[in-house]
Amino acid sequence: MAISRPHPLQLISADEVTKASAIVRSIAEKQGVAIGTKSGLRFKNISLHDPPKALLLPYLDAEAAGVPAADRPFVPRLILAIWSYDRESRVVESVVSLDSGTEVAQSQTAKGQHGSIDRVEVRDSQQRMLEDPLVIEAIAKLNLPPGTIVQSDPWMYGADRNSNKDTHKFMQALLYARAPDNHPDSNQYAFPLPISPLYDIFEDKVVEITKLATGGQEDGLAYDTASDKPMAHCQANEYHPDLLPPARTDLKPLHVIQPEGPSFTITEENCVSWQKWRFRVGFNYREGMTVHDVRYDGRPVFYRLSVSEMTVPYGDPRSPFHRKQAFDLGDAGAGSTANCLSLGCDCLGSIAYFSGYLNDEEGAPVKAENVICLHEQDGGVGWKHTNFRTRNPSIARARNLILQTIITVGNYEYIFAWCFMQNGNVELETRATGILSTALIDPGKTSEWGNVVNPGVLAPNHQHLFSLRVDPMLDGARNSVFYEDSIAVPYSEEENPHGNAWRVVKTPFETSGFVDADPFANRVIKMVNETKRNPISGNPVGYKLVPQPCQLILAGENSVVRKRAKFAEHHVWVTKYRDGDLWAGGKWTNQSLSEVDGVFDYAARNEKVRNEDVVVWLTFGMTHNPRVEDFPVMPSEISTISLKPADFFDRNPALDVPQSRQEVNKSVLVSDPLPTASKMVGGGDECCDVKSKP
Amino acid sequence: MAISRPHPLQLISADEVTKASAIVRSIAEKQGVAIGTKSGLRFKNISLHDPPKALLLPYLDAEAAGVPAADRPFVPRLILAIWSYDRESRVVESVVSLDSGTEVAQSQTAKGQHGSIDRVEVRDSQQRMLEDPLVIEAIAKLNLPPGTIVQSDPWMYGADRNSNKDTHKFMQALLYARAPDNHPDSNQYAFPLPISPLYDIFEDKVVEITKLATGGQEDGLAYDTASDKPMAHCQANEYHPDLLPPARTDLKPLHVIQPEGPSFTITEENCVSWQKWRFRVGFNYREGMTVHDVRYDGRPVFYRLSVSEMTVPYGDPRSPFHRKQAFDLGDAGAGSTANCLSLGCDCLGSIAYFSGYLNDEEGAPVKAENVICLHEQDGGVGWKHTNFRTRNPSIARARNLILQTIITVGNYEYIFAWCFMQNGNVELETRATGILSTALIDPGKTSEWGNVVNPGVLAPNHQHLFSLRVDPMLDGARNSVFYEDSIAVPYSEEENPHGNAWRVVKTPFETSGFVDADPFANRVIKMVNETKRNPISGNPVGYKLVPQPCQLILAGENSVVRKRAKFAEHHVWVTKYRDGDLWAGGKWTNQSLSEVDGVFDYAARNEKVRNEDVVVWLTFGMTHNPRVEDFPVMPSEISTISLKPADFFDRNPALDVPQSRQEVNKSVLVSDPLPTASKMVGGGDECCDVKSKP
Repeated sequence: MAISRPHPLQLISADEVTKASAIVRSIAEKQGVAIGTKSGLRFKNISLHDPPKALLLPYLDAEAAGVPAADRPFVPRLILAIWSYDRESRVVESVVSLDSGTEVAQSQTAKGQHGSIDRVEVRDSQQRMLEDPLVIEAIAKLNLPPGTIVQSDPWMYGADRNSNKDTHKFMQALLYARAPDNHPDSNQYAFPLPISPLYDIFEDKVVEITKLATGGQEDGLAYDTASDKPMAHCQANEYHPDLLPPARTDLKPLHVIQPEGPSFTITEENCVSWQKWRFRVGFNYREGMTVHDVRYDGRPVFYRLSVSEMTVPYGDPRSPFHRKQAFDLGDAGAGSTANCLSLGCDCLGSIAYFSGYLNDEEGAPVKAENVICLHEQDGGVGWKHTNFRTRNPSIARARNLILQTIITVGNYEYIFAWCFMQNGNVELETRATGILSTALIDPGKTSEWGNVVNPGVLAPNHQHLFSLRVDPMLDGARNSVFYEDSIAVPYSEEENPHGNAWRVVKTPFETSGFVDADPFANRVIKMVNETKRNPISGNPVGYKLVPQPCQLILAGENSVVRKRAKFAEHHVWVTKYRDGDLWAGGKWTNQSLSEVDGVFDYAARNEKVRNEDVVVWLTFGMTHNPRVEDFPVMPSEISTISLKPADFFDRNPALDVPQSRQEVNKSVLVSDPLPTASKMVGGGDECCDVKSKP
Repeated sequence: MAISRPHPLQLISADEVTKASAIVRSIAEKQGVAIGTKSGLRFKNISLHDPPKALLLPYLDAEAAGVPAADRPFVPRLILAIWSYDRESRVVESVVSLDSGTEVAQSQTAKGQHGSIDRVEVRDSQQRMLEDPLVIEAIAKLNLPPGTIVQSDPWMYGADRNSNKDTHKFMQALLYARAPDNHPDSNQYAFPLPISPLYDIFEDKVVEITKLATGGQEDGLAYDTASDKPMAHCQANEYHPDLLPPARTDLKPLHVIQPEGPSFTITEENCVSWQKWRFRVGFNYREGMTVHDVRYDGRPVFYRLSVSEMTVPYGDPRSPFHRKQAFDLGDAGAGSTANCLSLGCDCLGSIAYFSGYLNDEEGAPVKAENVICLHEQDGGVGWKHTNFRTRNPSIARARNLILQTIITVGNYEYIFAWCFMQNGNVELETRATGILSTALIDPGKTSEWGNVVNPGVLAPNHQHLFSLRVDPMLDGARNSVFYEDSIAVPYSEEENPHGNAWRVVKTPFETSGFVDADPFANRVIKMVNETKRNPISGNPVGYKLVPQPCQLILAGENSVVRKRAKFAEHHVWVTKYRDGDLWAGGKWTNQSLSEVDGVFDYAARNEKVRNEDVVVWLTFGMTHNPRVEDFPVMPSEISTISLKPADFFDRNPALDVPQSRQEVNKSVLVSDPLPTASKMVGGGDECCDVKSKP
């Protein structure tokens, strides 16, 4: 008891990665797995395994109550290791206990289930693709200019009905050429090749060269519409500053300065305290950034917040484009693909960083440096009222706390930012940027399935559909979920004689299930604690969210695309908490033929969720029909989901934010020195009410 | 010709106000209107009158083409003066020409049409209400504590079917008491009186004391449910800092510093240039802030942008609450109610201000000081891509330009901010803050029609519905409007064998009309110039907007509430431009019984709008069912409408924004000095890719 245990939510350490892989190595050896050979043991992912809630929550409650660490309940330190052998044909999940030094659980993928694409496969497949004689021959037939460098973007295979392709693990490559200047950062997406090699990971060989259709509207599903120089009309379109004309010179610097430092404090490496909020930052290979144990002024609010999955189905019907459907978390990993953020480039102001640990294929720790950043941001006017009688304004500016990460999944970037606000809101802002996925189109043609964004370049229509997992613990673990609609009351003399009334109709989730957004009914999702009443209104304390009324998954009912992403069929899912229920799209998404053990299955257990430990899953996103402005690199497309207090507090929680004052804020009045321009007025205290006669 | 004329969009000057009112005074005298008496001539509003587009647009095009001012076409300088006499029973609109010094048009309100509520009426009615013996008697019956100060919030009457109340002009007062400490800024809304005096403006007297219902759910439409001390249970709930405990002390300052000044320039008082954008700022009594002649890199984009109207209907069926339905622009005026912004309080950073002119009842100019502010703001990551092969990131931060105004309409505040972005977006951000309108509720009761937000205080449910008027001139004045839906293609072997495809179905507006949001079809509104094709995609150049799928007006079909606000029955209206078509809710909204000559009527003219001078009107807003957190002052509720380029440009227009670099941005790495905390890592250039075997 004298040795202090790490906090159960402390990020995994290098030492723990090493210890865990040692345990797994010995387990694997005992199971007869080869070590050190190309088809032998390979570590895919090693991360902290969420402790059982039944043990962790009491620990967190004790911590919040001020109980010293040594007296808090025991929480096991568990590590999840995903490893493979026989060239990915066997994928194993081991849960090891660092307390006992043993494996405490093990499961294998079933036939047809595949692990994520990892960096080893990305690297190996790229080599194989480009060295393969079939590929070399196929490229030669494209009559590209001599010296053209072809590059291979490895993609997960997606899914299709095709017997052994259902069970072997594949990589499909999308091939691109560099622009003729051959700068290593030249935008290859302006030169998409009309062929896609298929690489069998089990067999370690290219098994097929798939032709890609390049026709236009008039060509239907036809292939072979291209000339013998199918890419001759492609042109460079660069984004890298080395390859662009000089940048604009009229943008003046803007600095965010906090002369007394930021208002947040970080303790125990990953515990953040700021403006009555306190939470822990997590990081793992799959979800990337996670947020835990969110409390406001000591009151429990959210147990866990994360983006649980995302899927990006493409809408071009011509095979094999229907197999473009990445599950960027399950197939690749938001942690594995997280950017190392750079001071002053990615982040502006006074910045703190969090780093995590990933691993290499030998199970050695690899630092994920600065993968999450933390900083404050001015949020504009937080609240204001001017008493028109006295003309006295009262105004508090909003100060927001941003916790942000950026991931690069091949061509695309996604930025996820949690925003904590003084008004009690917790918001997730998602930005999509990076480069559109492109395909070749014959010269002069257009397509219904996308937009021509550069000569010869079709950017196909696609969707981005995310799942936000919200595990509330509003004033306690047992919560309920309602949806509330504003419904007009019919005219009647007895009740609504002027026709202006509406009711808020509240429907509880009694059992797990789903509901869709209904913006025309002003549908709101309310997460509440029915045993805790707001002392003012009498309503149960709660938090609300408005489901983003995005277009849900477009693919047809019987399509594999839809079956794989049942989470994207509805906007809001409500499930009964169970340890391990983390993956909206299922655990093994790569090459899945349907969503297995995802949120659909969690909900289908039909468990009681009224006044229980519940989890809410929100599907949000957008249908992206590209525009020319999205190329060569897409301006950030922003989407925000807000969790807002609803009778959780007994008044505006930002009331005690200090008034916004010039002595503190030190704004500067701009006056134009040019003699031809008028003098800027302003800055004084006079107000402008019309003088009225005495 | 030697004397230079003001730019046609130059803000009205003090001198012009004076000249215009002199012209009107002489016209009025000739018409036999008394001058200088209480029931004689009174000036309500004097503002610049939009010049005819047929004259203004050629002027602006000439200016943009570099034609010197003296050689540009003539544009008349017209002033609109709204004046009244016979105690508002006659309201007149005069358009005067400052070129000829004469009135060029005059119209009067029809019987039953009323002008806005102005400051004279606000002031006079407050006095009358509180001095009236009937009112004094009714207040006495409430048995308020001795010394209680009662205050009167003047409200427009709204509308009801009641013969002479259809034609006389009224003010209804909502009465509130100050908290017992009697601080002049004490929050009166915590002490709502259950009586509402009705003041006849024509007769200059209180004609009725309306009882307000104070019952709860069990009381239906009943009145007289209160005790003889109906407000005894009310309690103070303050927002003014003088009346609150000390503010939190852990918020550290955050400064936005632009050491080289801002990137914008202002010329000719109100012409703003910034990052290839150029536009003119307007201000008038009714719309408040307006934006004109928006061009990007010399290309015409928007002729005029403004919030055209808003309505706030309340949902409590108990008379007279159905008459709470403010049209804050038409009934009061966003310019008339604009705050004088204060450096470092309302605005953070390097700020420029615009001032305008309003007028007093004698037609003298009154400065509207600092009613609009302008400043830059960091917008987070504008675009980013990291080439996974080279690990080289390219990243540009977004810098936004904010043009903002704040209005106070009685209890509520609204903040409107235009946001110009380097990616070509123009966005309107609307915030609602200030204080909920409140009504008394008996102790211990709750109501279906709102939420109890303080003891004895019901905050009734209501809606905020706005109309955004967008007059595009995308590469020219003749544009078209389409709505585009993403529709799944049915499965078929010939066309969609994998079920993953969708089409974008584009429907043009051939004639003026409306359409609603359809978020589940990903409905997008496209404003395009069909005669100008994007050289890359071949699509017509355009701008798109996603209609906010807000809940439209809830009041029943036959209700006066709905009839007054037809604009709020649909999300998107498309009309043929006509000078003077500015008012979504009609010109004379105050006490209207139905929307007359509003956007419904503009659209009902059934004019051809394909490839014509069109105007798009967007209805947006929210149903507001208050929460306890909204009291005593509401945290800003934010709503954003985005106008985004759609094949307007030939690539991402922000590509030449300089790369985000630490040398320029000067961010600071936070490291915690506390010995118990871990050292923060980070700030270096190392990246975190898994080391792979050679």
